[in-house]
This record gives sequence, structure tokens and C-alpha cells, in this order.
Amino acid sequence: MKIGIVGGTGDIGEGMAMRLAPLYDVIVGSRDEVKAQHSCECNISTLKDCGASCCSLAGATNQEAVSCADVVILAIPFKNVVGTLEGLDCFEDKIVISPVNPMEKRDHFVFVPPAEGSAALLIKRLLPKETRICSAFNTIAANKWKALDEELTYSVPVCGDDDEAKREVMAIVNKISKLQAFDAGPLAVSSMVEALTPLLLNIARYNKMRDVGIQFR
Amino acid sequence: MKIGIVGGTGDIGEGMAMRLAPLYDVIVGSRDEVKAQHSCECNISTLKDCGASCCSLAGATNQEAVSCADVVILAIPFKNVVGTLEGLDCFEDKIVISPVNPMEKRDHFVFVPPAEGSAALLIKRLLPKETRICSAFNTIAANKWKALDEELTYSVPVCGDDDEAKREVMAIVNKISKLQAFDAGPLAVSSMVEALTPLLLNIARYNKMRDVGIQFR
Repeated sequence: MKIGIVGGTGDIGEGMAMRLAPLYDVIVGSRDEVKAQHSCECNISTLKDCGASCCSLAGATNQEAVSCADVVILAIPFKNVVGTLEGLDCFEDKIVISPVNPMEKRDHFVFVPPAEGSAALLIKRLLPKETRICSAFNTIAANKWKALDEELTYSVPVCGDDDEAKREVMAIVNKISKLQAFDAGPLAVSSMVEALTPLLLNIARYNKMRDVGIQFR
Repeated sequence: MKIGIVGGTGDIGEGMAMRLAPLYDVIVGSRDEVKAQHSCECNISTLKDCGASCCSLAGATNQEAVSCADVVILAIPFKNVVGTLEGLDCFEDKIVISPVNPMEKRDHFVFVPPAEGSAALLIKRLLPKETRICSAFNTIAANKWKALDEELTYSVPVCGDDDEAKREVMAIVNKISKLQAFDAGPLAVSSMVEALTPLLLNIARYNKMRDVGIQFR
């Protein structure tokens, strides 16, 4: 299976690429293909230093990361969603994963959803109707993705309207470190998942913690 | 410290009363004082069966549960908040804890906040401006409150605008079983906390689990 990461050279994208590369063929997308290739070289070097025996990472444009992939992860900030998706096509037969959280930092972190109710529902409106969209990975901090010497012992709620796509996404989640996927229901539930991230950032801030995640139990 | 539970004979209120009675003087409030007294007799009997050496539980009207208490817990469903609070007074010098979650069961569980943004902010508007309101205990299932043979190993986000009141509420949380309080920031963050409960109910439903709770980590 080929996984393309749009925004794959960003903080979260880079960490995701390193966690996924030993498991899948990963295409790291960027607006700047050279930057993507350089990021992959650095990531491969880091993975080798950590003892990874084989990994598959290739740098490309964001469009190639979409076109070549079976599953596309949109590792981009909410403010870039509309602009980025307007410039990309060939999503029709893809599963698209949104880890996007619409939020702002004011006195505290605030959930600021778009009119659709959530980033995932906005993405659904922007992409072709055949595209199967799931939200996943919303609550895992960039630092944790990158800390390859640490197991990821978090719960990951996954939302989506297509059961087969959701099962595939949950299978991907469950292969990464010790992440545990939970079916959170239809894509409409993504608003509640996306609201968790500003809550976790507030918990971190007010309790002097770092990179707070969750477990359901 | 005296803790009054408005709605103390409901599912969650009864469990809270049993967990709190060995630690504090608890006044169980109900619209029906006789029902409250009967509930306390049953709870005391249950607590003795579980080996509790001493506990303080008294049945009363909801108004007495407010008037006699230092801290008032509103253990009522969201749909009863306005009607219940309209019939009660003497909240001026109290700390009020809202575990209330505005939600509906449709195809899935949906977070349906009032115009104020959250149940806690609605309660703030309804009560005197001197009342110090915190949200807490939002995500703990009634069955878990009542399962006295089980430790409660959950994280409890606490929101509030008065730092001293929030510290007192967090101290109460931390005395109950193995609950761990986390400062989640000002009362405005309560919308994100209240949205967690329908998410947890969806997680339970779609993964065939029961009484799902959370831990921050």
C-alpha cells in the first residue's frame, strides 16, 4: 500500500513519514519537491541511526503524493486546507485521512470549526464525492511522532462514513507503534474529535505538561 | 466541608453520593425529600456492606442541599438545568460544580450546546454573579460511580474562572478513588470538556465497550 503525505515536510508530516516508512511505501509531498527529497534523505538517515532495517520514503510534489498513493494523509494546518486542496486533483479513488484541527490560540486554545462543523466535513465538501474521507491521528503531538525511541501508547478515534475505508485506516493506525484505533462513528463525529486537541493543549498549558495525549479505557 | 448534590437521587447523583460520603458531609437533594432520605438509607446500607467504617449522608430537598452546602454539585440532565435552577436560590456564596453535558442521541451521540457555548456557561448566566462555577466530573459514567469495588482510574478536566474555587474542586476530585484532576483552564474551555462525553458514548457504542472514560498522558 502506498501512503502519500500532503505537507509531508511539516512538523507532523515528517514524524508521520518516519513512523510509516518501515511499514508502507511513503510518498512525502511538499509544494517544493527538492525540499521533500531533502527531508526524505534526512528521515532515512535518522531511521537508519535508529536501527530501521528497511524503509520506503520518496520525496515528491504534493500532487504526486496524491496521484501515486492509495491513501492520502493531509498533514497541513487548518488555515492551509482550502488553498492546498484547490491546487490538487486526482482524489477520486483515494482514501483521505484528515488529522486537521481547526483551532486558535487566544488566552487559551479554542476550537474554531468552519461552517461545515469540522475540518473533516469541510474537506469532504471540497473533494470529489467519490473520495472516502476519514479523520484520524488528530490528537498526537508532532514531538511524539518524531520521538522514534518512544512507543506511542495512545488511543486514536477514527471517524468516517465508508466502513471499508474506516477499517483500512484503523488497520494503518494499529500497525504504528502501540497506537490503538477506535471506531468513533460517522464523519459527523469528527467535530468532537477535533475539539479534543485544543482541550489537550489547554491541559498541557495549565498543568505544565508537554505533548499530552489520550487513552480511552 | 459540606457537599450538596442537587439531583442526588439520580443515577449519577447516587453514585457520587456514595463515593463522597466517606470523605465529606454529603447532603443528597431531591425534589422529593422522602425519596432523598430513602436513597440515603440504601446508600448507607450499601456502603456498610462494602466495609465503609463511617460516612455522612443526609437526604433533603434540593433547596436544602444548596443552602446547607459549601460546594454544590448539579447532578441533573441538561434538559432540567433551567427549570431546576429557576426554582432554587441561596447560591451566592457557593462553589457550584457542573458535570452537565448538553447532548442528544440521534443516529449517534451529538454535542448540542446552548447559545452560551456550554452547559457550564449557561449555568453561569443563570446563577448569581458571586457564585463560583467549575465544570468537573463530566466524563465519568454513572455505572462507574456506583461500582464501589472498582477504582476510578480516570483523568478529570476541571474548568473555572476562579482559581481558588478551582483548586478546591481539584482537591475534591483528587480525594475520590484514583481520580486525577487536571486544570483545563477557564470556564470557556468547558465546551471542549462537555463535547468529550458524547464522543466517549460514540466510542463505546461503535466498539462494543461499556462506560468508556479517559486518561490524559
